[in-house]
Amino acid sequence: MTQHETWVALRAHWQELADLGGIGALLGWDQSTHLPGAAGSGRARQQALLAGVRHGRATDAGYGRLLDQAGALDLGPVEARMLAVARREFERATRLPAAFVRASSQHAGESYAAWVEARPANDWARMVPLLERTLDLSLEGASFFPEFAGPMDYFIDRSDEGMTAAQVDAVFAELRAALVPLVDAVAAAPAPRTDFLAREYPIPTQLRLGEEIGALYGYDFTRGRQDLTAHPFMTRLGARDVRITTRAQLADPTDALYSTLHEVGHALYEQGVASELLDTPLGGGVSAGVHESQSRLWENIVGRSRAFWAGQFGRFRDAFPEQLNDVTEEEMFRAVNVVRRSLIRTDADELTYNLHVITRYELERQLLGGSLAVSDLADAWHAAYEANLGLRAPSHVDGVLQDVHWFSGGIGGVFQGYTLGNVLSAQFYASASAANPGLDAEFARGEFGRLHGWLSEHVYAPGRTFTPNELVERATGQGMTAAPYLAYLRGKYADLYGLS
Amino acid sequence: MTQHETWVALRAHWQELADLGGIGALLGWDQSTHLPGAAGSGRARQQALLAGVRHGRATDAGYGRLLDQAGALDLGPVEARMLAVARREFERATRLPAAFVRASSQHAGESYAAWVEARPANDWARMVPLLERTLDLSLEGASFFPEFAGPMDYFIDRSDEGMTAAQVDAVFAELRAALVPLVDAVAAAPAPRTDFLAREYPIPTQLRLGEEIGALYGYDFTRGRQDLTAHPFMTRLGARDVRITTRAQLADPTDALYSTLHEVGHALYEQGVASELLDTPLGGGVSAGVHESQSRLWENIVGRSRAFWAGQFGRFRDAFPEQLNDVTEEEMFRAVNVVRRSLIRTDADELTYNLHVITRYELERQLLGGSLAVSDLADAWHAAYEANLGLRAPSHVDGVLQDVHWFSGGIGGVFQGYTLGNVLSAQFYASASAANPGLDAEFARGEFGRLHGWLSEHVYAPGRTFTPNELVERATGQGMTAAPYLAYLRGKYADLYGLS
Repeated sequence: MTQHETWVALRAHWQELADLGGIGALLGWDQSTHLPGAAGSGRARQQALLAGVRHGRATDAGYGRLLDQAGALDLGPVEARMLAVARREFERATRLPAAFVRASSQHAGESYAAWVEARPANDWARMVPLLERTLDLSLEGASFFPEFAGPMDYFIDRSDEGMTAAQVDAVFAELRAALVPLVDAVAAAPAPRTDFLAREYPIPTQLRLGEEIGALYGYDFTRGRQDLTAHPFMTRLGARDVRITTRAQLADPTDALYSTLHEVGHALYEQGVASELLDTPLGGGVSAGVHESQSRLWENIVGRSRAFWAGQFGRFRDAFPEQLNDVTEEEMFRAVNVVRRSLIRTDADELTYNLHVITRYELERQLLGGSLAVSDLADAWHAAYEANLGLRAPSHVDGVLQDVHWFSGGIGGVFQGYTLGNVLSAQFYASASAANPGLDAEFARGEFGRLHGWLSEHVYAPGRTFTPNELVERATGQGMTAAPYLAYLRGKYADLYGLS
Repeated sequence: MTQHETWVALRAHWQELADLGGIGALLGWDQSTHLPGAAGSGRARQQALLAGVRHGRATDAGYGRLLDQAGALDLGPVEARMLAVARREFERATRLPAAFVRASSQHAGESYAAWVEARPANDWARMVPLLERTLDLSLEGASFFPEFAGPMDYFIDRSDEGMTAAQVDAVFAELRAALVPLVDAVAAAPAPRTDFLAREYPIPTQLRLGEEIGALYGYDFTRGRQDLTAHPFMTRLGARDVRITTRAQLADPTDALYSTLHEVGHALYEQGVASELLDTPLGGGVSAGVHESQSRLWENIVGRSRAFWAGQFGRFRDAFPEQLNDVTEEEMFRAVNVVRRSLIRTDADELTYNLHVITRYELERQLLGGSLAVSDLADAWHAAYEANLGLRAPSHVDGVLQDVHWFSGGIGGVFQGYTLGNVLSAQFYASASAANPGLDAEFARGEFGRLHGWLSEHVYAPGRTFTPNELVERATGQGMTAAPYLAYLRGKYADLYGLS
């Protein structure tokens, strides 16, 4: 093969991997949105089959030889990074023995099926032996990568390349030290009125408003769409097919709105990757943390700001004149930022959410480190919630059994990205607003283009051209730091709750 | 391998082929129902990739050896038929050279893309060279199967196994001889009133009524669903996932209703295949003609009957009280059976529809036989329409360019199934009603279970266990015959139009 032919063959292989990934995403999207009730097991089999086909192509020996040959090519920096990312993924995928991958996948399926029954039955005892096996498999998986300092470093690196457990430990310790007293102070202050949010808001109108604002944010509906699901998500089905889903409650219009704006944030990132990177190893978001930074930035920092409501309250009052006839713009702004200690992570407000995540991260650290046994996890959960949030779950349903993550995948690296995203959201926003004075005034006019433009240039367009740490440094001038996030939270909640 | 292991491996391979087919069906379903506008070319690439993966598995040499080994197994009659069908499909798929398959597929894509532009522009000249190449490729494809008497026999056999061009010629000649004077007589009689069908009928209500009646027919929505598309279709995405689509017009409620009932008929067939046959070579409808017989039976013979409207008119009047306040049940029955000579096949009524199909079939015969050149096809189209329907299209848009079939696939065997379906629908129904006296009285009560039961037992459950000809003989006691269909049409339209 000539150099040119090698590169053409690599691009074609990457295109195929991207297309197989898109087909897999369609199988999942349809399962969550439209699949007939009786078709579940058939769909699971189709997904496993397609995943097997994709895994076969991703670990194909001929592909490996192509990657080796390409090492001798004279590449520009972007192409060199494409190759480096592809080699890293190939190496990761081929180092795990096939028997281990099969055993893990089969166990994950069995564990998930058991959890679906055990959770409503509050049957923690049933899950203990399954979770013990999950922990064993997680540790075994990490053992194939001895170059990392420990299992947690391996798992964090899988979703947030280049990040270490020590870095996360440090950031989370700083956050917890600041957040626990801040939540205490807020809890002691008078709560805003939220009664009007419990009125009835017809769901089709809720969905329409979310889509209108998503379009204002910059979500391109010719390359996407929104559907209803039980759990909202964003998924890329193709280079020009980035879909979101939302959920809605009749008696809480903020659920659909902020679910939509959260997923729009993820989608803006995926839709904003430079077109020349699409369907290559660089054609997507760079890490779990940076991805979540965009969902949280558009959901919280923008969507729960006073300036946002200055621009959008009229839209809501026009759509829901009776429901909002005794409500002011300021009351709406305060209501969507109400802080309440609660037991469920996915229902948590902006401020307490991180304490849920930090709790899980710390428990994962102890499980993987051997200082906590699975059989003691439920008690450790209660103790951690009492320490971090001052609450104790009345049952395991709202305690250790609440999240699907440990019961469907593995232990390690599955939660920290949520809070890293919060931290990075404020860091990116601080840089964006420093470079673009007056963003609030634009938001108040319902304009978001200048912010979208800055983020597109500095975060979205590069895709995976830089590592997450490089991207953060290039965009903000420094490595990841919690300072902007803590300043944002302190300023916002001091204002809202009249703290000194 | 032991005998048992060989059979287990074959079943697993068939399961995989079925699952890949289901994934391909999902890609197509989503393309027609939900795909964002900008994602079309990416989806086409995904479909081609998946088709290639499936073709690879369907023609895999290891699979061929398994089929050979299975020839020595001691099989029961159903398993022997599974193997025979699988061997036939394997042989068909492997006999076409890969280069020919690629060239055909690429040409089909180019031809379709050109047709999408040429049709609205009335640009027949642009399509002539493309259709000439289509004809060459069709003839070349047939040449790989010299065991057939001619190209048309090969193409008919692909969709209606065991049927010959001579058989179709004879049936169609009999039909045309009867239909042309029958249409003449109807055209000379006074037309029923149809003014009320042009009132405005809100589409969500139309769709609800169609789904209610589909459920009465026996369509199982836990194993299916209905969505809106430009062109209605039925598709099997999995053993328990058989979906339909419909279209709707505000000012014609019969379009959505009969599109739904047509696709429900196809779906009842697919949903009715015996569960032990699912995901095997026998797990689906046996031929294009038998499939269409079920869509037409439920759409026309049942759905346009006086008894049907005796049971359903109240449902419509309740749903559309203002639109139907001056309409009687009898007027509704007559309006949905109005006969009008028209230029467009897909808009044609039950009676004239076959003349559209026969026209195309005869033109295909002449093209494949060499007695008609593609460059003369447009003139031949006009001449045939004048002879068969007494009409001349004012442009090629409503003439030779109207159907996608020749411009996206090939020439030969693509139309006759529609009219074979009509013929068989009456033949099956005559046997069903002879075995079940009093079906009309049940229809008038909104009950369709006894008919559904008979069809399930005699047509649906066997799947592809018998050849189409065997199935027809077993179910009706004789080979395919046009007599019941002509008797049905003559009786119905003599009544409706007061013919002597």
